[in-house]
Amino acid sequence: MRASDDEPPTHHQPPAIPIMAMTGITLDAIIHVLANTIFHPLLTWLLPFTFRAQGFHWHMPPMRYSLAFSFFVVLFWWLRQLNDWIYNGGKYRKVNWSEEIVVITGGSSGLGGCIAAMMAGKGVKAVVVLDIRPPPEEMMEQWSDRIKYYPCNVGDPSAVSRTAIQIQSEIGHATILINNAGQVAGGKSILELAPSEVQSVLSTNVLAHFYTTQAFLPAMLNSPNGGHIVTVASALGYIGVKKTSAYTTSKAALLAFHESLTAELLSSPTIKTTLVCPGQFSTELFIGVETPSNFLAPILGPVDIAKLVVRDVEEGRGGWVYAPEMVDMAAGLFFFVILSC
Amino acid sequence: MRASDDEPPTHHQPPAIPIMAMTGITLDAIIHVLANTIFHPLLTWLLPFTFRAQGFHWHMPPMRYSLAFSFFVVLFWWLRQLNDWIYNGGKYRKVNWSEEIVVITGGSSGLGGCIAAMMAGKGVKAVVVLDIRPPPEEMMEQWSDRIKYYPCNVGDPSAVSRTAIQIQSEIGHATILINNAGQVAGGKSILELAPSEVQSVLSTNVLAHFYTTQAFLPAMLNSPNGGHIVTVASALGYIGVKKTSAYTTSKAALLAFHESLTAELLSSPTIKTTLVCPGQFSTELFIGVETPSNFLAPILGPVDIAKLVVRDVEEGRGGWVYAPEMVDMAAGLFFFVILSC
Repeated sequence: MRASDDEPPTHHQPPAIPIMAMTGITLDAIIHVLANTIFHPLLTWLLPFTFRAQGFHWHMPPMRYSLAFSFFVVLFWWLRQLNDWIYNGGKYRKVNWSEEIVVITGGSSGLGGCIAAMMAGKGVKAVVVLDIRPPPEEMMEQWSDRIKYYPCNVGDPSAVSRTAIQIQSEIGHATILINNAGQVAGGKSILELAPSEVQSVLSTNVLAHFYTTQAFLPAMLNSPNGGHIVTVASALGYIGVKKTSAYTTSKAALLAFHESLTAELLSSPTIKTTLVCPGQFSTELFIGVETPSNFLAPILGPVDIAKLVVRDVEEGRGGWVYAPEMVDMAAGLFFFVILSC
Repeated sequence: MRASDDEPPTHHQPPAIPIMAMTGITLDAIIHVLANTIFHPLLTWLLPFTFRAQGFHWHMPPMRYSLAFSFFVVLFWWLRQLNDWIYNGGKYRKVNWSEEIVVITGGSSGLGGCIAAMMAGKGVKAVVVLDIRPPPEEMMEQWSDRIKYYPCNVGDPSAVSRTAIQIQSEIGHATILINNAGQVAGGKSILELAPSEVQSVLSTNVLAHFYTTQAFLPAMLNSPNGGHIVTVASALGYIGVKKTSAYTTSKAALLAFHESLTAELLSSPTIKTTLVCPGQFSTELFIGVETPSNFLAPILGPVDIAKLVVRDVEEGRGGWVYAPEMVDMAAGLFFFVILSC
């Protein structure tokens, strides 16, 4: 019940659930291929060059259309760079793994566990796992020098501030905060949920982000090297579905939390913020839930998402991690309209 | 602090804040004019008819383009009707004001107060106001036979269920539930908010919707005439802004709550659901806040929104109330993309 978002994956035994689940021809695969061929900002010029080499003149339709196409591909590529540049205040954060202290809530299992293990593998100074359950023994043994476990119910503000003080004195101040702990009260309609269940989901999934930010952000603001705060929301924050009301409600709240946090940190460009919106996971949480379309919304393994998160944190780049692409397209259009007004 | 969303409007004295504030040329005014002229599904045919009367032949460009234009205007009009038809399960709810019992949270002032007074004026059986402060005396005197005040902190689940039982035995079962109570902890950054402030905002603004729905929906489901549940969110649920994090977080959560509730009621077409997303209000809550653009996002008076809500409830029609139009356009595109996948 009150736990990070799924059961601990076992690291030395074959996992019961496939870690990489995105297989077959998916929209993501097609977008990936197109982005690296005709929509690639350099490769796209092959088309007009080929026409030119074949002797077409500049004013002929094939030349003109292919040049216009390439021009727009490059224009959109630059707009993306510009967006990234503005979001990051013109500068990425310099990450030196051996000096980074990562705090990750719900880091004992699921997506959090994957991120914790990957960051330990990067050679961080410490990965501090805040969770109500300890990480699996194999994980602790493999990274005994790097992964530190602090039992903590992140929905309890005094537990969070107490643990934060303890971490500060025993390890140092956190430079990367990954707010990942999540809890579901799934399978129940609004009428079936007990008030305590809804309260508990909102505490772990929403209030915890306020508490941990309050506990760890001040030290990041005082440090010249800044920090990075990652908010793990969900595609379900964009689409309310039945019998998951408390969860979707809490994840929608996180979209706004990330926006507010980012807005408040505009004047502190050394602090990066990242919003993670995964689609359907191949973890136990979603066992028995079928994707409406494996083409549009393929089921992802937590490793797929963890890789993207670790990559962005490593590059010191704030932004959005949406996967699969369908989540990006829906959310992207939404933000485009909002931002353009 | 812990209250409905603004100070009580005075009804017999000139209000300090203008009730109708949308003045000047705004995007809304232009859209309204266009929708009732060249984009009107009947008036649009005047254009091809005029060309025809002038002797243009069917194959001539002015005829062809104007016919195509009119065709698309009608097509989009029909798509809107279809959307409305699907959302409402093909049937509106039959509303007989003299038999309706309206429960409205935060109904003592602001938008809630406006809706309560308007519905009392419609001749409802009773408007039950749940609020921690009583409605203004003038309002109670004018509608002493219709408006009933029950002091209740809607963020407290036992208070809500206790009050619901009391209402049920003293007045009858609610047929219309307007979840409007809202609370702000504005002007404070995430770091400045006390945990109790965030908890309080999320309780009043989000958890209360679960509690009141659990208290009043079952009787609606058992009644052949069904009921109507109105969720008052905010345009700020779509756009996180700084120093309003708890509020925007809670309002974003409500967007998902409405979606989940609607999804769960798909099999109960006699229960209608309406999402209300107002932009900036001319209430005390927003005093000193300037609109980024009076053209795109004009400041509305609570009466403007209340009228739209009462109209939809009166027609027994579920759906969305977005005002000003800018909120609709942003949200509309978002939902279009989500729904089309």
